[in-house]
Amino acid sequence: MARKCSAAWRKTKTLLLLLLVSLSVSICVCKTSEEQMENMENTIVTEKKAEESHRQDSADLLIFILLLTLTILTIWLFKHRRFRFLHETGLAMIYGLIVGVILRYGIHVPRDVSNVTLSCQVNVSPATLLVNFSGKFYEYTLKGEISASEAKDVADNEMLRKVTFDPEVFFNILLPPIIFHAGYSLKRRHFFRNMGSILAYAFLGTVISCFVIGMLMYGCVVLMKQVSQLDGDFFFTDCLFFGAIVSATDPVTVLAIFNELQVDVDLYALLFGESVLNDAVAVVLSSSIVAYQPAGDNSHTFEVMALLKSFGMFLGVFSGSFALGVATGIVTALISFTFIHLLETALFFLMSWSTFLLAEACGFTGVVAVLFCGITQAHYTYNNLSPESQDRTKQLFELLDFLAENFIFSYMGLTLFTFQNHVFNPMFIVGAFVAVFLGRAANIYPLSFLLNLGRRNKIRSNFQHMMMFAGLRGAMTFALSIRDTATYARQMMFSTTLLIVFFTVWICGGGTTQMLSCQHIRFSEGSERRSTKQESVWLFRIWYNFDHNYLKPILTHSGPPLTATLPPCCGPLAHFLTSPQAFEVRGELKDDDSDLILSDRDLSLTYGDVTISTDALGGHTTAGAPGSTSEDLDRELTYGDHELVMRGTRLVLPMDDSEPTFSRPSP
Amino acid sequence: MARKCSAAWRKTKTLLLLLLVSLSVSICVCKTSEEQMENMENTIVTEKKAEESHRQDSADLLIFILLLTLTILTIWLFKHRRFRFLHETGLAMIYGLIVGVILRYGIHVPRDVSNVTLSCQVNVSPATLLVNFSGKFYEYTLKGEISASEAKDVADNEMLRKVTFDPEVFFNILLPPIIFHAGYSLKRRHFFRNMGSILAYAFLGTVISCFVIGMLMYGCVVLMKQVSQLDGDFFFTDCLFFGAIVSATDPVTVLAIFNELQVDVDLYALLFGESVLNDAVAVVLSSSIVAYQPAGDNSHTFEVMALLKSFGMFLGVFSGSFALGVATGIVTALISFTFIHLLETALFFLMSWSTFLLAEACGFTGVVAVLFCGITQAHYTYNNLSPESQDRTKQLFELLDFLAENFIFSYMGLTLFTFQNHVFNPMFIVGAFVAVFLGRAANIYPLSFLLNLGRRNKIRSNFQHMMMFAGLRGAMTFALSIRDTATYARQMMFSTTLLIVFFTVWICGGGTTQMLSCQHIRFSEGSERRSTKQESVWLFRIWYNFDHNYLKPILTHSGPPLTATLPPCCGPLAHFLTSPQAFEVRGELKDDDSDLILSDRDLSLTYGDVTISTDALGGHTTAGAPGSTSEDLDRELTYGDHELVMRGTRLVLPMDDSEPTFSRPSP
Repeated sequence: MARKCSAAWRKTKTLLLLLLVSLSVSICVCKTSEEQMENMENTIVTEKKAEESHRQDSADLLIFILLLTLTILTIWLFKHRRFRFLHETGLAMIYGLIVGVILRYGIHVPRDVSNVTLSCQVNVSPATLLVNFSGKFYEYTLKGEISASEAKDVADNEMLRKVTFDPEVFFNILLPPIIFHAGYSLKRRHFFRNMGSILAYAFLGTVISCFVIGMLMYGCVVLMKQVSQLDGDFFFTDCLFFGAIVSATDPVTVLAIFNELQVDVDLYALLFGESVLNDAVAVVLSSSIVAYQPAGDNSHTFEVMALLKSFGMFLGVFSGSFALGVATGIVTALISFTFIHLLETALFFLMSWSTFLLAEACGFTGVVAVLFCGITQAHYTYNNLSPESQDRTKQLFELLDFLAENFIFSYMGLTLFTFQNHVFNPMFIVGAFVAVFLGRAANIYPLSFLLNLGRRNKIRSNFQHMMMFAGLRGAMTFALSIRDTATYARQMMFSTTLLIVFFTVWICGGGTTQMLSCQHIRFSEGSERRSTKQESVWLFRIWYNFDHNYLKPILTHSGPPLTATLPPCCGPLAHFLTSPQAFEVRGELKDDDSDLILSDRDLSLTYGDVTISTDALGGHTTAGAPGSTSEDLDRELTYGDHELVMRGTRLVLPMDDSEPTFSRPSP
Repeated sequence: MARKCSAAWRKTKTLLLLLLVSLSVSICVCKTSEEQMENMENTIVTEKKAEESHRQDSADLLIFILLLTLTILTIWLFKHRRFRFLHETGLAMIYGLIVGVILRYGIHVPRDVSNVTLSCQVNVSPATLLVNFSGKFYEYTLKGEISASEAKDVADNEMLRKVTFDPEVFFNILLPPIIFHAGYSLKRRHFFRNMGSILAYAFLGTVISCFVIGMLMYGCVVLMKQVSQLDGDFFFTDCLFFGAIVSATDPVTVLAIFNELQVDVDLYALLFGESVLNDAVAVVLSSSIVAYQPAGDNSHTFEVMALLKSFGMFLGVFSGSFALGVATGIVTALISFTFIHLLETALFFLMSWSTFLLAEACGFTGVVAVLFCGITQAHYTYNNLSPESQDRTKQLFELLDFLAENFIFSYMGLTLFTFQNHVFNPMFIVGAFVAVFLGRAANIYPLSFLLNLGRRNKIRSNFQHMMMFAGLRGAMTFALSIRDTATYARQMMFSTTLLIVFFTVWICGGGTTQMLSCQHIRFSEGSERRSTKQESVWLFRIWYNFDHNYLKPILTHSGPPLTATLPPCCGPLAHFLTSPQAFEVRGELKDDDSDLILSDRDLSLTYGDVTISTDALGGHTTAGAPGSTSEDLDRELTYGDHELVMRGTRLVLPMDDSEPTFSRPSP
């Protein structure tokens, strides 16, 4: 009775608030237009105008904040009622759409007469412009080039332009926390177990998808030209660029449901790992495609040199960003010792942000650097933080990720109506949907077939269908497509991309539970049984041993002291590099990897076990011949401590040959 | 031995890092100039230029991030060695100064030739400008008006201008978290006990200080005119404006030391409360002074109507912002029930931010609204949050406050050298220092004398000297002075303000411990003895009872259910308004006020006690005659439960008459 009353009470309050908030939104929107009117009257007094402009900016931002608030309240209601068809991001889009419609059609804004077009004889566009209006100097800053056709539109609707953010905001403010958070939460056992497959899907798969979509779209564009459906230029590089931006998947909706329903952990790891890494690949790929510029007159012919240059740029930028992110992560790991909590968190935050800025300042891709910085910090720095700071940083980045993600999705909804230069071309849109579908298929099915040749734990066909289905497009695709909407081709891409995102988030995201039950995908009780049958792979073992014996002791407090793992001749060096804490905790060595494990159920299968067993082995064997740890381990595997070690160190890296060394223990 | 080794190890690592970071700073600075050079070469290709500009922006921001990182590392070193002479903010300023010197003198930047001055026949300055450079359209946005003399400087040093932020950033991004955090942490018993004195110092005191400084500065300016030391206009309103901006105190350094040394809690409360509230007063006061515009031709004559209008504006804006802040706080209290933690924190953050935006959009002062929103939320909303969210929000705002504060102070150091239009006038500077000193004295000593007439627990003379000494100027003064530096008078004010901030932070902040021991100020063991001798005041008691019996039950889960406090005729309404949780927790009623108390030592004196005892009383007495709670309480005071109730509800509000009603229990 008390509980019922409580629920009713809560609902009443929530509804009351929903009304209140919507009211504020509308008031605010009206206010915006009112201010606009006011704005017209006193165009002469600059100070007043600046104040008005500031008030309008506040009102605009307020609309977004209220949209987010509304989204949060509705999500909470949904979670309360276990309603799974609509995810918070889908919801944010819907609210954005509604406000966009109101802004576009609900408010009549008088023509802004105060825009002036000046003609100038200089053939330079300076960054700062001083304009002398009847004796007074005003300073103007360059916002960007606009096409002549657009020049008319600029004057048209000032208010809609006002709620349109600078696209770079997405790249420099909203995307970094999302990507960093993805990297920071990637430290899961199942990710490493499926690392080979994930890398294959993310790298090979994205490139395949990009080229398949690019090729198909080029065919579509050629067809459109013949039936004269095309009003502007659309080159092959544009098609490839489109392929690159729509190849970044973002199955945030699907993953949320997976997490809730405890769907198979391997499938989760495959999808999550792929989506995190293919964002990075897509960013670098698209910038390399933009950089493709043949030397000749016609800038859109095929040229080997330019192609190689683009390819080199891809490799250079990617590896540069990777190195930079990892380096900053390692620096943070080195300095983050026993600080005061507040300072620790602040330092962590600042170092992560500086990774982004440093990468951007060096001409690399900040988003990619931040991703690998996040992965490195989760792997090393996290272990050095005090428990309170571990919580703080996790919560902080979780919050930032949540806010940024929902902001982007509600902005997406809004922009469908408020963006001024949409080009909706039915033929292009249909072609794009088909191409995106086929591109995803060309990524998943052939690669899965190849990977299954090497994997003992096959990726079954229902998993493949699920991965195919879960190819949602999200924040990264949107941010890439809105970044440049100057040309006709880019505008058409942007409009089409928006529709693709809407469709995949609503249809694919909403149908996840149906798809799961339709494909008969079991929830993850089977993982324990299967994991004892996993194969080990030499490549991963080498990395693991190196990481555990050398990197972890240097960078964190965990792992065995270096004095035990390095050869005796390096004694003094080892002593210098090992942190004193590592000696102190020697008795109770434990690896903190275990606390980011997917579900509590398979806690017995964590790295924790591995560490203990390899430590024990390491203590015995590496003292004499430290270079041959993995061989020692092999010998050890044939007798004693068998089951435990097998469970832990035997990790799947499927791209490998059939692995004769490790078939020994199996029979 | 192990500990020694550990410390040495840590120091080595820290020093290593300090070097590394400084290196990055210098590299980054060099990079900036390099890019600047590059920037010059290809002024024609817009896209490339935008990219270069973005890279430079990243590098500039990186400088600040690295400055903050350096500050954090050094603070940690200081805290480790218990070094109290230099606070983190002072340190941030020093590092800022150093980088400013490097940027100013260390790097030779060639003249930027790409600035163009256009002349235009229109007598309007549009917000958006389309410029037609040889057939291509470029969009420019209005940055502001600049004086003709400045117009030359603009072209002069592009790079220094680049590291200069838009002053509105301080007001709209950096100040709100600082002020909100101050409000959110104001919920302390000693603040309420000294509320009357605090309000007197903050309101009356700031106005007195503003006018005293304004008057003195006007005298100084008149004198300067006569010895022809003045190169531009300087009106009386300018002097008053200067008085308003330097009247905002910010003793963050002193308070940090007080907190660490456990200095007398009443003194702490007086200083902290005053500094929080006088920021709000100074903001509104300065904007009212700017709004003073007589109707006649000469805009600087005295006119009663204009004065009244300004005064009305002060009251209107202040009370409007106050009401808005409190209203949003209450709305948050109403909706923040049993959410998922992440959603709860996100909602809390968004609602607080929307208070700021809403106030700005309505033409009120966002900073003031945010302050009172923080106070309200600490008082009501905080009690409704889950314990985890309480921690999360506290930590989040603590982090934001820390980052914003240190950023502002390091920017202050930087701007002393990079700001282009400094006007250092020795006579004005000396006059300002004297005026600031006398203004503070005219605030503290007379008001303390008057307040002591009403207080039984006198503000002793050593406390008064300490308050005088602790009148540091900080973030708010800086933000107000940098907001508008267009005229000669404002530039002179800005330069002088910078010097005042530097002086007070370094000298007064650094000398706090010396001053404390010199004034023989005891640390807070005496507070417990004294608190039993406090007077109660009817005004505060009425408020407390109203808050406890009606507001808290409606807005939070704590306090007695409304059904017990409202008259029986309001039964259904009371039932509707009371949250079900309030019924459930009826047995173990407790007020969460206790967890923001200054020191653990006097936990026995917290509101917690009060609540329990008044609850018990309320349960007994208010059922029959709910309107007369305070009278009932009085009767109750004379017999039974005496000591406990006296301790809690007897709070000092000194501006009152000698209080005959409550002298009864004392003898």
